Amino acid sequence: MSHVIEVDYQFPAGVDAARQAQAIAIGQTAGSWDARFQHREAQLRGHLAELRDIRSLPSGRQLVTIAFPAENVDGRMGSLLTMIFGKYSLAGPAKVMAIRLPVDYGQACRFGLAGIRKKLHVAERPLIMAIFKPALGLSAEDHAEILAEVAMAGLDIIKDDEILPNLPSAATLARWEACVPIIEARRDRTGRDLLYAMNLSGDARQVQDLARQLVARGANALLLNVLTYGFPILEALAADPEVNVPIFAHPALAGAWCAAPDHGFAYPALLGTVMSYAGADAVLYPAHYGSLPFPETDEQGIVQALRARDVAPVPSAGVHPGMLSAILKDYGKDVILNAGTGIMDHPMGPASGVLAFHEGLERWQDGASWQLSDLPAGPLRAAVEKWGNA
Amino acid sequence: MSHVIEVDYQFPAGVDAARQAQAIAIGQTAGSWDARFQHREAQLRGHLAELRDIRSLPSGRQLVTIAFPAENVDGRMGSLLTMIFGKYSLAGPAKVMAIRLPVDYGQACRFGLAGIRKKLHVAERPLIMAIFKPALGLSAEDHAEILAEVAMAGLDIIKDDEILPNLPSAATLARWEACVPIIEARRDRTGRDLLYAMNLSGDARQVQDLARQLVARGANALLLNVLTYGFPILEALAADPEVNVPIFAHPALAGAWCAAPDHGFAYPALLGTVMSYAGADAVLYPAHYGSLPFPETDEQGIVQALRARDVAPVPSAGVHPGMLSAILKDYGKDVILNAGTGIMDHPMGPASGVLAFHEGLERWQDGASWQLSDLPAGPLRAAVEKWGNA
Repeated sequence: MSHVIEVDYQFPAGVDAARQAQAIAIGQTAGSWDARFQHREAQLRGHLAELRDIRSLPSGRQLVTIAFPAENVDGRMGSLLTMIFGKYSLAGPAKVMAIRLPVDYGQACRFGLAGIRKKLHVAERPLIMAIFKPALGLSAEDHAEILAEVAMAGLDIIKDDEILPNLPSAATLARWEACVPIIEARRDRTGRDLLYAMNLSGDARQVQDLARQLVARGANALLLNVLTYGFPILEALAADPEVNVPIFAHPALAGAWCAAPDHGFAYPALLGTVMSYAGADAVLYPAHYGSLPFPETDEQGIVQALRARDVAPVPSAGVHPGMLSAILKDYGKDVILNAGTGIMDHPMGPASGVLAFHEGLERWQDGASWQLSDLPAGPLRAAVEKWGNA
Repeated sequence: MSHVIEVDYQFPAGVDAARQAQAIAIGQTAGSWDARFQHREAQLRGHLAELRDIRSLPSGRQLVTIAFPAENVDGRMGSLLTMIFGKYSLAGPAKVMAIRLPVDYGQACRFGLAGIRKKLHVAERPLIMAIFKPALGLSAEDHAEILAEVAMAGLDIIKDDEILPNLPSAATLARWEACVPIIEARRDRTGRDLLYAMNLSGDARQVQDLARQLVARGANALLLNVLTYGFPILEALAADPEVNVPIFAHPALAGAWCAAPDHGFAYPALLGTVMSYAGADAVLYPAHYGSLPFPETDEQGIVQALRARDVAPVPSAGVHPGMLSAILKDYGKDVILNAGTGIMDHPMGPASGVLAFHEGLERWQDGASWQLSDLPAGPLRAAVEKWGNA
């Protein structure tokens, strides 16, 4: 094999891992290895996968490494996932723990964190991102009204809630048109852009058409629920010269793929490796400090995989200003701080939610204390009084 | 709510199901329900989901039914999956057991079993389908050679193996061009078409372009790995007037979505309901008689959901002629019998694999015995001697 794709599979105790490795190496490549095919053996042999390693884990589980020829797939995620875990996912308990791809596999991000920073003219500090809330029930004008509240407070990025599709009551294009004047006014006054990652929806053709229409009208970022829409849509958008804006990847449905102990994928393999080789510029995932139960080691694994490909990590879900010192200690400056209710439900209003983040960033840069008693009256203190101080 | 989408969620013992139901009803709709939004309460309230039922299961688990307003989504699967299980899939163990959609939701199949029968001019008997094997390593010419062996034996449908993408060594268009003369010769001699469900691959745009190119060159069926490529691609293909051929949906990766006891989806919800509302004409899934461990009740649930939408059920994986009487007892005539090695590895060659199925169908129609000792020498007996008699 010239180029290989290595995959680590984990099997629960009691499974004959060596036998399963063989089933994968043949079943997911040649598919069948019968005496009848011996006259084609030379052709077939080059496609077989190989067992590279079997080791026992402290939990009693076993970890198997299989190497697949990269020539078996077309350099895209659809064929990759089908090869490494397609039919085999139906063969009994097994979990894909890691996927190691050739560096030139798939789709590199076009912007990543550096490109997003460049668009925003913010080089040195973490970026601050908000989410339109409530998710459903807002008109296009409501979106503009909310955006106006946060834009002048120094927000860098805002995104749709992932559950808001292209609805007649708040059509995606109408939301963009309503928000354009706010973004332009902000640019005129501050010289800085504000990215609005607009949620894509529809069937595959509609998603792509909507993305092109939005970008043609000046939209400057997109949001895609990659697991409910499919990696091939992300790949197509990231390769489309008419869609030349950063793409934010949302992890909706990731629990269905990853949360089970002995099935599916490890979070870092899916939200780190596969996302970053499919062209995402920024990837959202639950922060372990946040409102969703998420293992810290999975978060670390995701961040490592994303940063290896220059993709922006976006810890999310329940992020609020009081959490800032903990996040910054782990991440440093190269992170996008994404808060929904942590900005929109700030007791003094959304603008103060953004100001609280800026205030927190300044304290962090100055090495100032985060003790509630040391915080002066203002947005940060009000946030910490409401949500606490992680 | 005028139109509702009902979803049954199953929680393991020990989870506060009522509390989780509330988290879903608000978190997956409005997303947030803060005092700050009270001035928009009327707008928001119409989007909230409602708890319809909570009941305990004999296993100690609990089943919760939630009704979502259909107006929250855009009539497509991407937004549906995001709403019902997007962020919430990350909130702890929960499994989507059933999804009940308005009848006009999504994409109806254009052909289904009746349309496939019409194309094949086979009204009364089960259809016989083969899979090109080995999966990788065959050239376009090898495909034609194999097809020639089975075409005149009376095969109805053949499909690519799902792991074969558009590779330089056997490009999809080249495979089609190589096989066209065989299909035309068969039509000339018998008056009957043979469908070749060609595997689609690439990014989303490439998949759609490839489908259009194939159909423009006369291709008469397509195969899509729906879970590794995404439901929105299936929806787009099924809605595309330029892709007016039956689409066979493959369940690759379904185990990652469905096999865990307390995470993901129940197989019938995903491979039955979602597939049939996303436009699939025929859906493959493991037969419980076959080589993959698959619960009989899940198979029955899938079949029921598919037939309710006129979609062809295709029990697969390890199907061989000796299994025929068991399958026919369960399915009757309205089924597609899909065999890979069960045809290609027949001891007398692939043509005899097809003949064995026909011989078996005739015995079934005649009510003849399937005991090995009662079988005359020939393809069926040879198959039963090799693979047994389920």
